[in-house]
Amino acid sequence: MNNFDFHNPTRILFGKGRIADLNEQLGADAKVLILYGGGSAERTGVLAQVREALVGRTLIEFGGIEPNPRYATALKAVEMIGQNDVTFLLAVGGGSVIDATKFIAAAAMYDGDPWEILTSRGCVVTEAMPFATVLTLPATGSEMNSGAVITNPEKGAKLPFSSPHCYPVFSILDPETTYTLPARQIANGVVDPFVHIVEQYLTYPSDARVQDGFAETLLRTLIELGPKALQMPEDYNIRANLMWTATLALNGLIGAGVPQDWATHMIGHEITALNGTDHARTLAIVLPALLQDQRGPKRDKLLQYASNVWDIHDGSDDTRIDAAIDATRAFFEQMGIKTRLGDYDVGAAEIERIVTALQDHDMTTLGEHGAIAPSDARRILKAAA
Amino acid sequence: MNNFDFHNPTRILFGKGRIADLNEQLGADAKVLILYGGGSAERTGVLAQVREALVGRTLIEFGGIEPNPRYATALKAVEMIGQNDVTFLLAVGGGSVIDATKFIAAAAMYDGDPWEILTSRGCVVTEAMPFATVLTLPATGSEMNSGAVITNPEKGAKLPFSSPHCYPVFSILDPETTYTLPARQIANGVVDPFVHIVEQYLTYPSDARVQDGFAETLLRTLIELGPKALQMPEDYNIRANLMWTATLALNGLIGAGVPQDWATHMIGHEITALNGTDHARTLAIVLPALLQDQRGPKRDKLLQYASNVWDIHDGSDDTRIDAAIDATRAFFEQMGIKTRLGDYDVGAAEIERIVTALQDHDMTTLGEHGAIAPSDARRILKAAA
Repeated sequence: MNNFDFHNPTRILFGKGRIADLNEQLGADAKVLILYGGGSAERTGVLAQVREALVGRTLIEFGGIEPNPRYATALKAVEMIGQNDVTFLLAVGGGSVIDATKFIAAAAMYDGDPWEILTSRGCVVTEAMPFATVLTLPATGSEMNSGAVITNPEKGAKLPFSSPHCYPVFSILDPETTYTLPARQIANGVVDPFVHIVEQYLTYPSDARVQDGFAETLLRTLIELGPKALQMPEDYNIRANLMWTATLALNGLIGAGVPQDWATHMIGHEITALNGTDHARTLAIVLPALLQDQRGPKRDKLLQYASNVWDIHDGSDDTRIDAAIDATRAFFEQMGIKTRLGDYDVGAAEIERIVTALQDHDMTTLGEHGAIAPSDARRILKAAA
Repeated sequence: MNNFDFHNPTRILFGKGRIADLNEQLGADAKVLILYGGGSAERTGVLAQVREALVGRTLIEFGGIEPNPRYATALKAVEMIGQNDVTFLLAVGGGSVIDATKFIAAAAMYDGDPWEILTSRGCVVTEAMPFATVLTLPATGSEMNSGAVITNPEKGAKLPFSSPHCYPVFSILDPETTYTLPARQIANGVVDPFVHIVEQYLTYPSDARVQDGFAETLLRTLIELGPKALQMPEDYNIRANLMWTATLALNGLIGAGVPQDWATHMIGHEITALNGTDHARTLAIVLPALLQDQRGPKRDKLLQYASNVWDIHDGSDDTRIDAAIDATRAFFEQMGIKTRLGDYDVGAAEIERIVTALQDHDMTTLGEHGAIAPSDARRILKAAA
């Protein structure tokens, strides 16, 4: 096991009816800016629950945060904070709204050009406004971590940042808010955490029994319950288990003390930056091809994955590895997510643009060994064609 | 899954050589009181590492905290804090030293008779001094939770308290500090977390896949590595996995959203209060007898435990349950811990005193259904004779 730090101060309020507990989490004097997305929070009644819980407070609202949240949009919210003496931010939505809120919380306190938050080597964020979340779309894990990804279409860039100052103070997770999600979002909300877990698990052995066992539990939960969530959208326990799984997939716990990969994410980000494909779908495209390509360095963990996640025990090592990768692809397809670049109209020319973008964004030493260069990414992307 | 709150703000610094990182975790002006136990922290060199890491600071020390830490001892430390303008407490040791430090941190800020902290219904602690830990004996999980147990021999009482103000600010977990533990402490450090996990897992099904899977991972890790730790005391990865398992066994994670039992602990505390038996040993006595006694209400989870923890798949339901309980007892014995009251000179007369003590301490509705009365505890204890 490697040395590690683990610190996650976010308070989770989980379960039915928990939005009603919102008011008591906030200081009496908090001046709250509610941030949300494109209208689903209004349509599903979640925003109404939030306003009801906070009745009597002066609320300011900022809607219209888009999927793959944009830098320019975030800056408009920063401006609104300054004009209204806002002291607390409340994100109501999924990973995009929460990621935007993290960036807004940091940018509002940042002396200098906020673009530096996304582009500086090392962490330049020294403080951030306090913020909390009401999660309506479990997928990214942003509700219990300190990372965010912001898109700047003018620059063709989708860039991550993180800061220890950017953990939500609290997050409210009510599985019932997810009943109305369309199938596409349910599928994304299963595949995205699946790949988050794989990025922290499927590397090379480091004798971290607890982290491995936890990762395998989370993967098996997604495999078993993901398809059922599509069939039974209002089964509370299915939604509750999936929601908690997605949070634990990326809250630092399973990644503590183990090698991590993240190449699939970095390549996937470039696909989204190029053509706007849903984040989870880019991961479903890249991962199976990457696992095949990296089956040498990942051999021991691929065999463990085949056995402990997929119950594949028969045949030679290579046969079992092939079966596990095939099962992974089949699972994504079963969730209704296509796994080939061609399914998303990304052809040979676009592959070259993705490879160039990786080079431009210094994504030249990807993977747990730092050994995946843009030329390797080209080979992986061609295999995913 | 039940509704739950989860919040654990303790920072973990895990791994080789992490005591050297102690100084940077403390404010420049912190006036630190180091608390420790009976001499092993000195003998093993851990205290020397701590002093070395904090060289240049004015340090005050309070040694002599006993196993099953005593109320009167804790009050002496509180007095020392007042006399020396101490601002930060640093516990160096195992669960006893850390538990005492939690109580001292709360008592030092408490207006009124500190005995109320242990005896009041509801939580009376509204603030506590900041404190941290350097863990040398993984077992109780106290390094990453907010609970403590204090013994008052004059009153024949061993009483728990907890407060959200009593999480360590940080805890340093260096597995190498555990190499010198005697076999008895290693065994306690495996059996204590084992029973912590069982208390949160082996109740009745609540469709909490993640919590169940995590609990099963932790139990399997203890079963596999516990005996190896006795054979290979300086194997780093064995110690690291056991140390992290003991912490996660009682940091709130696996108990979030599930029913909990704790009857074994409450009965065990009375055994220790009566005759000073090691906490873990009292659990090893009570648990197998309690599982047999409660096999009806716990039936579904006992079958899951047999299958997922012990790989017992053959035979009737009752056969598999018997085999799982037998395996549990055999595991404790394999760790060198006797599992019968007679092994500790506790006879029929003492059983009656334990039953009376449960009654006196209002421990009259134990277990996940609140259905274990002192008369039921008598039956369980007689079965453990």
